[in-house]
Amino acid sequence: MPQYRAPVDDTLFLLNDVLGLQGRSNLAGFADATPDVVEAVLREGGKLADEILAPVNQAGDREGCTRHPDGRVTTPTGFKAAYDAYAGGGWMGLSVPEAFGGQGLPQVINTAIQDFASGANLALSMYPGLTQGAVAALLVHGSEEQKARYLPKMVEGAWTGTMNLTEPHCGTDLGLLRTKAAPQGDGSYAITGTKIFISAGEHDLSENIVHLVLARIEGAPAGTKGISLFLVPKVLVNEDGSLGARNDVSCGSIEHKMGIHGNSTCVMNYDGATGWLVGEANRGLNAMFVMMNEARLAVGVQGLGQSEAAYQSAVAYAKDRLQGRALTGAKAPERAADPIIVHPDIRRTLMQIRAFNEAARALVLWTALQGDVLHRAEDAKERQTADDLMGLMTPVVKGVLTDRGFANAVEAQQVFGGHGYVEEWGMSQFVRDARIAMIYEGANGIQAMDLIGRKLPKDGGRAMMAFLGEVQAFLKESGEDEAAFAKPLQAALGDLQQATMWLMQNAMGNPDNAGAGATDYMHLLGLVALGYMWCRIARAALARKAEGGDTARWESKLVTGRFFMERSLPETALRLARIRAGAGTTMALAAEAF
Amino acid sequence: MPQYRAPVDDTLFLLNDVLGLQGRSNLAGFADATPDVVEAVLREGGKLADEILAPVNQAGDREGCTRHPDGRVTTPTGFKAAYDAYAGGGWMGLSVPEAFGGQGLPQVINTAIQDFASGANLALSMYPGLTQGAVAALLVHGSEEQKARYLPKMVEGAWTGTMNLTEPHCGTDLGLLRTKAAPQGDGSYAITGTKIFISAGEHDLSENIVHLVLARIEGAPAGTKGISLFLVPKVLVNEDGSLGARNDVSCGSIEHKMGIHGNSTCVMNYDGATGWLVGEANRGLNAMFVMMNEARLAVGVQGLGQSEAAYQSAVAYAKDRLQGRALTGAKAPERAADPIIVHPDIRRTLMQIRAFNEAARALVLWTALQGDVLHRAEDAKERQTADDLMGLMTPVVKGVLTDRGFANAVEAQQVFGGHGYVEEWGMSQFVRDARIAMIYEGANGIQAMDLIGRKLPKDGGRAMMAFLGEVQAFLKESGEDEAAFAKPLQAALGDLQQATMWLMQNAMGNPDNAGAGATDYMHLLGLVALGYMWCRIARAALARKAEGGDTARWESKLVTGRFFMERSLPETALRLARIRAGAGTTMALAAEAF
Repeated sequence: MPQYRAPVDDTLFLLNDVLGLQGRSNLAGFADATPDVVEAVLREGGKLADEILAPVNQAGDREGCTRHPDGRVTTPTGFKAAYDAYAGGGWMGLSVPEAFGGQGLPQVINTAIQDFASGANLALSMYPGLTQGAVAALLVHGSEEQKARYLPKMVEGAWTGTMNLTEPHCGTDLGLLRTKAAPQGDGSYAITGTKIFISAGEHDLSENIVHLVLARIEGAPAGTKGISLFLVPKVLVNEDGSLGARNDVSCGSIEHKMGIHGNSTCVMNYDGATGWLVGEANRGLNAMFVMMNEARLAVGVQGLGQSEAAYQSAVAYAKDRLQGRALTGAKAPERAADPIIVHPDIRRTLMQIRAFNEAARALVLWTALQGDVLHRAEDAKERQTADDLMGLMTPVVKGVLTDRGFANAVEAQQVFGGHGYVEEWGMSQFVRDARIAMIYEGANGIQAMDLIGRKLPKDGGRAMMAFLGEVQAFLKESGEDEAAFAKPLQAALGDLQQATMWLMQNAMGNPDNAGAGATDYMHLLGLVALGYMWCRIARAALARKAEGGDTARWESKLVTGRFFMERSLPETALRLARIRAGAGTTMALAAEAF
Repeated sequence: MPQYRAPVDDTLFLLNDVLGLQGRSNLAGFADATPDVVEAVLREGGKLADEILAPVNQAGDREGCTRHPDGRVTTPTGFKAAYDAYAGGGWMGLSVPEAFGGQGLPQVINTAIQDFASGANLALSMYPGLTQGAVAALLVHGSEEQKARYLPKMVEGAWTGTMNLTEPHCGTDLGLLRTKAAPQGDGSYAITGTKIFISAGEHDLSENIVHLVLARIEGAPAGTKGISLFLVPKVLVNEDGSLGARNDVSCGSIEHKMGIHGNSTCVMNYDGATGWLVGEANRGLNAMFVMMNEARLAVGVQGLGQSEAAYQSAVAYAKDRLQGRALTGAKAPERAADPIIVHPDIRRTLMQIRAFNEAARALVLWTALQGDVLHRAEDAKERQTADDLMGLMTPVVKGVLTDRGFANAVEAQQVFGGHGYVEEWGMSQFVRDARIAMIYEGANGIQAMDLIGRKLPKDGGRAMMAFLGEVQAFLKESGEDEAAFAKPLQAALGDLQQATMWLMQNAMGNPDNAGAGATDYMHLLGLVALGYMWCRIARAALARKAEGGDTARWESKLVTGRFFMERSLPETALRLARIRAGAGTTMALAAEAF
């Protein structure tokens, strides 16, 4: 059975040394995040992940969720207790304003905890994760009354949240949405329709579930401009905040899925359920986007989490399993065979995952920090740049970290040989669970289109210019001892610039040229961003190494980073070549030729 | 529910136009394989796959195999009837000599049928597939008496076969093998030990199961040089060929696996079971290699089969699912949205899989044809070259086709969005089933080591020189109209030559330099081989196109090939860069640093 250990020390190094959290005390709330507070929070969060969430992960996969004939859904044995520990520890409100029962800490700290939680138990982490998304949407778009009535209960975890977008005939294309909202004359609406793929739509972890539901008010325009967001509680809430009658919303069935069996994925039937408008009428997508952006980052973190968990198991197995001898002569001559970690192909696998994980962790924290700056900085220009960078990097974190996270889980599974295919060892679960992250919150192809069609051209390419400017400024300051990092990044940056230029020149005339290169461009930018993170990590590691002490730790980091620069980063050239191929052969065939 | 259609027409084109089967009538048995015989066999095999094997694939995954308390194992509902149709149709003996009840047709025809069968139902196809492997081993290494007693029953499918290598502590490293064989004085041996991961080890499809078991004769040398191969029937066979007493071999348990649920993966307990030596004592690995090479090619074909099946489902979904509008304007303005096949990122996905599948199918048939030449050509030099080429390409077919086959199944699943993650749609099964092919018959890292450490340096690199010579000779004859194919292949070939040179110069001094680049080298050679296949397909398609008639079919093929040359083949440069990075950072860390 896999053993998960949250990467607390590495996260502390990233926050303190690489991202300079302590230099950000100009940001509201950051002054409270002193080094010892941050460390205490992360250590406690690590314990929660290691000791409470991880131990019920494998059993949760085996047992799965059960829908009963009366529509109730029960989660796997042990999930309720683990959820209660999560909620009871105040983790749900880590970065929610104190006014609503939260602790007001930076979002970047919350992101670190999400990394630990999703690595320990992806299925379970989704219940609080979706609640945090719903809280974020209500914080921005909810009325004062809605906030007062719902947020404190959600922040304490007594109530959970969901987001209801998808319908049987409409996923990506929300303009096709059919769920109806009819005004009831008292300010409320009667919501009618069917939603599918609703994660945590029904379960036994909380007293109430607050559904955020996209629906069309009668007479609203067709397409995406006629969609509104509604708050539809499972149980109606009385004036005094107590629970009242059951609302007309129910779970019709749950899906039998490839993975995340511990999370209930529901078909939700709204049969004239009472709901209240959140934000402005017909501006529902706008309100939902707050939740979606939050969720997209969180899903990217899930990709990293599964990659980390799978890596840890693969390392343990590679050290333990004896098979064959090292090519350069026996390393454990006293034993029947060497541990397989001596074999270069096993090493390559482990190094590849590790080199990704460390940079990916830096990237999600860097991106979350942009979110903090955006919400907490005083300077408008600083906020704008942070907003640009976060917008630019959100699809990359979602798309690249989940694509690579899944691929890494597969690679880690491979280390186990036949045992990797047997459910008992837990590697199959990492792969099956990681697979969903490439799909939900917008399939990765949609992330690529969001990047190339929206984020890149927006405001005349301001976001990409800000990113390139930041990287170039960093490279300008790099010393001789950073050459093994700076030079490859410079080359990769060149590929990114050429790809961007090519798109500018070729996508206007034929938008298919952008579409055909979108996924490659997303991965190209992702590689550059990860390479940039390695350059930052290297600078910090060199500084720590120069201080003396336990230099082996910093030396390992530098080796791992050089591996990334030598072996992973050169993929930018391949991505560029594909982008430059354009849409020609991709789009040439008639649909009937398939 | 997925609908599989065996690619009969495409296979006929490959056999007749690309590989020139009809020009091979100098090979024994090929004269019988006239165009109409080949077509009739493939059409009938396609029908078997489409109408008999495919319909029970999904139900087989859901139901799985059951081990009963008495040790019996039952396969899913419908498997027995489908197996009987397979065996009853004479498919098991398609290329087995007529003397043993087979039809003596070329192995390349049998390979085409394996492609259809594994695409239609991987789990089910393994029962006959393993039997064919056991038949191949007995044909080469069995005594005349063993052949006479066992082969006819196996060829008619009344008895099936298995291969028993793995033990709990030994998979790749067979030198650690512990199963014992004690002479019983009557020419037989008492076999005692535990074998794991035995596919089709116990089931209800056949009257008897012929286990081929690796074991160590008492007093034999340690390591791989003391391993012998034994034939251990589940039910002992009387002198007259009738079934006698039950042997002391039983299934202790079956594995709960990620996929291929319809195939029983057994722990087999040998408790003094009676067995007979196959081939020479202590030369068991040698005998087993016949079976393993056969099996490795067949597993490569499985990777292709799952890629094809997943592709077909993704195409059907992409034509059917309406979502969004084409970037270049609505393509189906009369409907609520366009079918998603209009979107460039969906197209890219489909083209990528399709471009791989067509070349991969050519490559497995080309490799199987080398096997036919090796066994049937009169000229010794011709046989030697075929042997070299087949040996060189076997790890590539196994490793690359299963790595890419799995990746393609994942890509095809992605086309379905959330529906791809729900078991009902069948895409998850393709992914879960395809995953095993990267692992069994030697994990792909082992294939890469076999290629780089054994096949490449063997006989002074004769095999690689033969391959390069064949490709260069082909390129020399390429005309102006083939430039879009020949030029990219020339570049890729250059990368392959540079990588080979680098290894020659750097692996002698430090074998880890070979090990660290092994997987990249395997994929590099695989890309070149697939590129070469596309060049051959293109030449044949251009010839057919010049004949006039239905030119759309040939034009589609040429577009698909150009897509491969533009988008997939350039990966050779990345593989070369990684190989050149050497073992430095890969091997630098101490095991404790992980």
